[in-house]
Amino acid sequence: MAVLDFSAWAQARRQGVEAALAGWVPPDAPAGLGAAMRYAVLDGGKRLRALLVLAASEAVHGNPDAALGAACAVELIHAYSLVHDDLPCMDDDVLRRGKPTVHVKFGEAQALLAGDALQALAFECLLPEGPAVPAAMQAALARLLARAAGAQGMAGGQAIDLASVGKPLTESQLRHMHQLKTGALLQASVLMGAACAPQALGGRAQAALRDYGAALGLAFQVVDDILDVTADSAALGKTAGKDAQADKPTYVSLLGLAPARALAERLRVQAHDALGASGLPDVAALRALADQVVQRTH
Amino acid sequence: MAVLDFSAWAQARRQGVEAALAGWVPPDAPAGLGAAMRYAVLDGGKRLRALLVLAASEAVHGNPDAALGAACAVELIHAYSLVHDDLPCMDDDVLRRGKPTVHVKFGEAQALLAGDALQALAFECLLPEGPAVPAAMQAALARLLARAAGAQGMAGGQAIDLASVGKPLTESQLRHMHQLKTGALLQASVLMGAACAPQALGGRAQAALRDYGAALGLAFQVVDDILDVTADSAALGKTAGKDAQADKPTYVSLLGLAPARALAERLRVQAHDALGASGLPDVAALRALADQVVQRTH
Repeated sequence: MAVLDFSAWAQARRQGVEAALAGWVPPDAPAGLGAAMRYAVLDGGKRLRALLVLAASEAVHGNPDAALGAACAVELIHAYSLVHDDLPCMDDDVLRRGKPTVHVKFGEAQALLAGDALQALAFECLLPEGPAVPAAMQAALARLLARAAGAQGMAGGQAIDLASVGKPLTESQLRHMHQLKTGALLQASVLMGAACAPQALGGRAQAALRDYGAALGLAFQVVDDILDVTADSAALGKTAGKDAQADKPTYVSLLGLAPARALAERLRVQAHDALGASGLPDVAALRALADQVVQRTH
Repeated sequence: MAVLDFSAWAQARRQGVEAALAGWVPPDAPAGLGAAMRYAVLDGGKRLRALLVLAASEAVHGNPDAALGAACAVELIHAYSLVHDDLPCMDDDVLRRGKPTVHVKFGEAQALLAGDALQALAFECLLPEGPAVPAAMQAALARLLARAAGAQGMAGGQAIDLASVGKPLTESQLRHMHQLKTGALLQASVLMGAACAPQALGGRAQAALRDYGAALGLAFQVVDDILDVTADSAALGKTAGKDAQADKPTYVSLLGLAPARALAERLRVQAHDALGASGLPDVAALRALADQVVQRTH
């Protein structure tokens, strides 16, 4: 696809993901748990991680059933992390995507359980019964997700984040925190899409997609830090200026606003270059996603 | 094995599980997260779930690498559930196995993250790289675990538990809650052991092990309720009388002490009968585990 109508591409795929998620999150889970889970997951959002899975899978002509399951799985992990991150013992946030956070609406205990259940559900999505997705592909996808979510990935990054409030960090320490906290799952989304390929990718394509995912993941966080100081709460759908208030180190506090913007642009170019080096023909959606991440306004 | 020295059998397997868990829980996870995870997991405990996996796997001559991974995985899920269950927004407990709970020692935020990371690690244990465990077996094990841990299993049972404080429950409602809250993971432990079989089990053995796991899971909870009123905190290693204080329905409050004891004994016999019906020759360890569950004093 030499020319891509990205907006139409993304809208069609978001609709598919929303429908699949609605099917996965059980409406009949006991005692209000299902309602809390659905509230946490089925509110739209940009679905960046799901789109990365689907774009990477399309670039390798991947198994569409596997890719849709993986797209749901990364969104479920992301949703659970937001629910837990918003809890009073963590960031204590009351607003998320313009709505009361899960614990404000359902109580802390239910929010805790909903997050826990969403993590388990993410793995269920990757492990369907039946012949549609080969067992080896299921295992590879679940392995990538478990590593990205755990102590050496997202949860580890959140632990560093907790420990770093009010402390001066170097740019390399800040980068390491974000590589784990948000980068690991973003990169895993790309690699999970690639793992839907019918045959194992060559080393060159694999390495290029890894580089693309790393650049995109970092760019995402740099832009997040920029938006935290330049956008207002209404546009963000969450409390703006929160990181600065909490005395958390950010790319803007460390580098300044203009150098942070220049860094984001350099990372966008790096992501594009990695796609060029991949040898894969159908990377227009991945290319557009890198642009979106850097040029977004919320 | 017609005659089994259960104590020696269990001790040898507990040692193997402790060593494997110590290898899985990363000491170098960032910013204190590894220390909190290790504290939550590596304190011994009875390892009932791990022993069920290993006993069931031995009954079907299962893949030992798969069984050890699965034994670790169910213990990690159990450990994470205790960490989250002890948090102030849930049971608000300060003592667990005779030690301060994880949030008392490491803070609430770190306890939350440690639980989250332990759940992810459980799936990692089931999905090792390399040829030791076939991909189809890995996927089957991870599927069983995800279902048992999620909204239709353990997390769902906890939601019912939360919602039922101070409410009158019928015996059937109480049974449903415990089937999810503790029964699902205990039964999954048995079925995961069985899933380590080199070939798929026959329907008769599969159904029998399912029945065994259901009876044992329910017996475990009935005995838990009995011990909550008959044992003291020192023997339990946790706060005794807690359920009665919290006005939670229990088998003892619903049936009375002597009928609860009679029910536990009936369930023990049911578990034995299921093993007899399984057609499997090597069930001495599973048989002894059912005895242990009912005859334990803490």
